[in-house]
Amino acid sequence: MQTVLMARIGDRLRMGLINGPRGEGEILSMSSSSVTMRTSFSEPPPPAVPLILIIALPRPKMLRRVLQCAASMGVKRIALIRTWKSEKSYWQSPVLDQENLAHDLILGLEQSGDTVMPLVTQHRLFRPFIEDELEDLTRGFRGFIADPSSGSPCPVGLNKPAAVAIGPERGFIPYEIAMLEKQGFTSVTLGERILRVDVAVPAIISRLFTSI
Amino acid sequence: MQTVLMARIGDRLRMGLINGPRGEGEILSMSSSSVTMRTSFSEPPPPAVPLILIIALPRPKMLRRVLQCAASMGVKRIALIRTWKSEKSYWQSPVLDQENLAHDLILGLEQSGDTVMPLVTQHRLFRPFIEDELEDLTRGFRGFIADPSSGSPCPVGLNKPAAVAIGPERGFIPYEIAMLEKQGFTSVTLGERILRVDVAVPAIISRLFTSI
Repeated sequence: MQTVLMARIGDRLRMGLINGPRGEGEILSMSSSSVTMRTSFSEPPPPAVPLILIIALPRPKMLRRVLQCAASMGVKRIALIRTWKSEKSYWQSPVLDQENLAHDLILGLEQSGDTVMPLVTQHRLFRPFIEDELEDLTRGFRGFIADPSSGSPCPVGLNKPAAVAIGPERGFIPYEIAMLEKQGFTSVTLGERILRVDVAVPAIISRLFTSI
Repeated sequence: MQTVLMARIGDRLRMGLINGPRGEGEILSMSSSSVTMRTSFSEPPPPAVPLILIIALPRPKMLRRVLQCAASMGVKRIALIRTWKSEKSYWQSPVLDQENLAHDLILGLEQSGDTVMPLVTQHRLFRPFIEDELEDLTRGFRGFIADPSSGSPCPVGLNKPAAVAIGPERGFIPYEIAMLEKQGFTSVTLGERILRVDVAVPAIISRLFTSI
């Protein structure tokens, strides 16, 4: 508060309770180690986006950006998956520790004034995840595979529950696409340009959900 | 080629000539210091996005991401402007040197297989830029101001030439909005969430231009 917001006694700050309402707090007193505030929380968090992101684990720096971005845009469910062409060593990254995941998610929530923590799960085996978990996870959601080479454009303004699978930098292999298609997922494209995942994620959200 | 692509003699690589066509090259010979290739360039670059981005100069790391992102999505014209609430010290950053700008733009072009270099200009005085240059720059383009507090939603699938002004983290001041409005710009919102500029840019492009 003191270094970033340069807040002083009497200032009113926007606040939020994690997984609770938003509101405001007035600073009553302040020292280098503590702050006393009068708070009131009465506003609901902004609407969530009904999207499940299923992402091939990217390199750690990129993952952090994707988590922050997705959280700031209101995504509440992210599944990180292992794919054939993704780098195995990324799974060793400390970025995947619960505390560090929470840190990045909160940065995203803070950015957009949201309070509801997204759930991030990690799936280190592709086939069991697709065969045994995907159906339950995405029941009632339309499933899409982001694939620049697809002939079908990504729907504009779907505004309904959707799950989007995004491959690694070097793409899904045909077997992985076939497995996803068997679960009812269809390939769609944002255009012929291959985008980085941290660019593809906001582009897909913005195109699917136009009423938020 | 050797360290990133692990290319060997006989491999065919996708290539492009800066501001020219795309094509392919076959590696004929290779040493630690040189490569000889047989190349053919016959494919035009992917279509550009008819968008002029007018962005309050963000902090250097963020600027680099925005340049890479915009270049990868096909934006060809970016004007960096100074605004009241943006940090003056950012203008001293070496990221703004022509060579460094070109480096980030080329990273973006490489990502999406584009060859056409965007033009990035720097405007260190807000008012002269708006009053004397904006009209010529944006003639024939619809002008928008990205403003989360606006009551008008950002058009979906405009698919026509557009210029979008994006303020600094702490927003445009009312005077700046009024100056832009005097030039025919209108405020639009992507939703109530305040997004970081590196997230807002792909979100805006994806929503305005749905036919690419």
